[in-house]
Amino acid sequence: MRFVVIGGDAAGMSAASQARRLDSVAEVVVLEMSRDVSYGACGLPYKLPPGHDMEDLQAVSLERFVNDRKIDVRLEHRVERIAPEEHSVHGVGPDGPFELSYDRLMIATGARVIQPPIPGLEALWGSGAYPLKTLQDGRDLKAALGAGPRSVVIIGGGYIGLEAAEGFTEAGLSVTVVEALPELLPFLPPEQRERVYAEAEARGVPVLRGTRVERLERAAADEPITVTCSSADPLQADLVLVATGVRPNAEIAAEAGLELGASGSVAVDEQLFTSAPDILSAGDCADAVHAITGASTWIPLALRANRAGKLAGANAMGRRKAAPPVMGTAVFKFFELQIARTGLTEDEATKAGFDPVAASITAATRAHYVPGGGKLSVWLLADRKSRKLLGGAMVGPEGAAHKIDTVVACLHAGLGPEQLYEMDLAYAPPFGPSWSPLLTCASQLIKKL
Amino acid sequence: MRFVVIGGDAAGMSAASQARRLDSVAEVVVLEMSRDVSYGACGLPYKLPPGHDMEDLQAVSLERFVNDRKIDVRLEHRVERIAPEEHSVHGVGPDGPFELSYDRLMIATGARVIQPPIPGLEALWGSGAYPLKTLQDGRDLKAALGAGPRSVVIIGGGYIGLEAAEGFTEAGLSVTVVEALPELLPFLPPEQRERVYAEAEARGVPVLRGTRVERLERAAADEPITVTCSSADPLQADLVLVATGVRPNAEIAAEAGLELGASGSVAVDEQLFTSAPDILSAGDCADAVHAITGASTWIPLALRANRAGKLAGANAMGRRKAAPPVMGTAVFKFFELQIARTGLTEDEATKAGFDPVAASITAATRAHYVPGGGKLSVWLLADRKSRKLLGGAMVGPEGAAHKIDTVVACLHAGLGPEQLYEMDLAYAPPFGPSWSPLLTCASQLIKKL
Repeated sequence: MRFVVIGGDAAGMSAASQARRLDSVAEVVVLEMSRDVSYGACGLPYKLPPGHDMEDLQAVSLERFVNDRKIDVRLEHRVERIAPEEHSVHGVGPDGPFELSYDRLMIATGARVIQPPIPGLEALWGSGAYPLKTLQDGRDLKAALGAGPRSVVIIGGGYIGLEAAEGFTEAGLSVTVVEALPELLPFLPPEQRERVYAEAEARGVPVLRGTRVERLERAAADEPITVTCSSADPLQADLVLVATGVRPNAEIAAEAGLELGASGSVAVDEQLFTSAPDILSAGDCADAVHAITGASTWIPLALRANRAGKLAGANAMGRRKAAPPVMGTAVFKFFELQIARTGLTEDEATKAGFDPVAASITAATRAHYVPGGGKLSVWLLADRKSRKLLGGAMVGPEGAAHKIDTVVACLHAGLGPEQLYEMDLAYAPPFGPSWSPLLTCASQLIKKL
Repeated sequence: MRFVVIGGDAAGMSAASQARRLDSVAEVVVLEMSRDVSYGACGLPYKLPPGHDMEDLQAVSLERFVNDRKIDVRLEHRVERIAPEEHSVHGVGPDGPFELSYDRLMIATGARVIQPPIPGLEALWGSGAYPLKTLQDGRDLKAALGAGPRSVVIIGGGYIGLEAAEGFTEAGLSVTVVEALPELLPFLPPEQRERVYAEAEARGVPVLRGTRVERLERAAADEPITVTCSSADPLQADLVLVATGVRPNAEIAAEAGLELGASGSVAVDEQLFTSAPDILSAGDCADAVHAITGASTWIPLALRANRAGKLAGANAMGRRKAAPPVMGTAVFKFFELQIARTGLTEDEATKAGFDPVAASITAATRAHYVPGGGKLSVWLLADRKSRKLLGGAMVGPEGAAHKIDTVVACLHAGLGPEQLYEMDLAYAPPFGPSWSPLLTCASQLIKKL
């Protein structure tokens, strides 16, 4: 039995490790095109400030995978073709072309940065303009920071763009975020989005919304980059970060004739098998079932990748475990704000055929007589017909990152605001008012249903 | 229609306010034996350090209740007898005895401190030895702190005792906690309790367990108090705090022939009516249904009092709302630790006829490469037969106070560790590992079921 995994990051190494746990004799081979395996990619923005080392992101060393877990990890092995009928993969390694047969194969090729078609970007790519997706990207950016840049323009104001805005600010750079869409973080209700804008302003980070970057120019390598924008004066920056999103690395699967799912990701069934026999897929390259809509969705996030990877590894070894559906729960930190969401937005809910009703409140994060803290904004969405919750979002200086999981549990259990409102939630003065903000928001939502 | 409420704290004022909201013409009378209404009693320990004012605990002023909400609040009115058949209450006010008839009555007399039968305590009560239950207790203790005491012995190591230990420490006093039981916080699993002990030690707060206070003596008012203990050398302290627990103020109900429930509290039905016609009860004097055992329980906590008070006020005005069951969710802060719990302990579960299985893990509160944070200990309890969760507890420097609500939601929904393990919980590096500690603990619990 030979289990071959294409891709050695979160999903791939989770799968390989789980396969080894369940079967001590099978041959487990990981083909990784870079020189890194299994690092905490979510931590890249946190390692930008001085005093932080990108190498700390490696959670489990290559040696441990190879020596302790007996996984045959082959670095710098790029798979170029899968031949499903022959049960083999073909590619190029450090010693030239290779071919490897498999009994079971797992595609864990992840996602890659979208390089937007901005004139001038290609010429600066890797020497002035950088992505921040892989550990090598992180190293390259750290090296660029070593040259002492004083300003950075971040193209794209999503999770990564905003996390990097904080990281660059802490590194002492002057930061500007440019977002082509009219608003950042479209999954947030307007009042929560305003808090993010206010936080950016308070931290001295201009956020240009509804602004496209039209051109990047640099006269010489030691000159600043001129960033020409659609609706603002040109910006000067020593660095440009491209954070316009990612797309699934699914071309290799498509070329092998495998079915694709949402956003062009590899389509998998409940047990994470693709449309081809003996080929599984998991992680940022694969689709998943959305817990609320039941439809194929593509949500490249870490827990999902780790969890599905582990399950795919088990199923590759003959288990029959179903991957749980996802609901797009996400949280990130932006300076002093915790920004968290789960489930559907109002638009997504309408498109999925629900009749969504939203309620929004703001409450104190501590009892009124406890110093410190701030305001927690809570937004909840429910379906008028079924009276079940559909989604939630929270923004605040404390509590949001952990409280969102209560909404997640409600969504998983199919509960509505009536049930949430009856819950015996925790209270102590340093952690909130006696009526939890979740209860207050549920109460408002009940009134509107 | 006259609605009379005995007791003007959380439950009583919630009831009076809700009754007024629902009925703008009814006469709403609150008879309060002290001179204070509706203050944040849970905040008392937080107001001990200098720079904090006990009066800040008043959330809504008497004027607002009287002028805005048109509630007839009568302070210093102590009800001594209820005559259910005559629909009247009898007592003593500042101008002498009074009698008042009612159409609906609510008993919201709360709980009171248990004054343990320690020789010498009575003589020191209020001048050297203090409780910390009411706002007036808080004022008395603040006044005592004004005299510059340097040491305090706290009798009882429960929530209040430990919160006060932190407050006194911040006020600069040397603090010793004496607990008669062999262990503090019996609802915590041993490894979490050890963390509380370690935190006390790190803060220089000795905790004498399995130690009874046998005698209190003071030679003169300006001398220290000698605290004679069952299994330790005598302690010297300028102050003694009595935090040995509370009991329901239900005597007035018992004397009127009303049925009593758990721990001698006033027994109420689902709509918070007592066994006597037209008499409701809610708050710390009344019982409740436990969500997991279905039995009568007495858990005097703030959210429960506020919620049941509000519902009792509505039902007094003719609504027919059911009070949700409780599960004893509680959280408190002890220096840098958040200590949270919900549901049943292993002993409680066994007594209730379950076959409990527990699992316990400790995980990082942040990704390994994010500075700061610490360890979160998570304990979950499930029933072997039904495979449903029965309870949970958490201790850690961050996350615990809010993450416990995820367990609460699972308990309310009747979910087990299998369902919890499949949840799409939030992850970002500053807030935990990619596998939430809850998922890790659920995984361990599944293996043991």
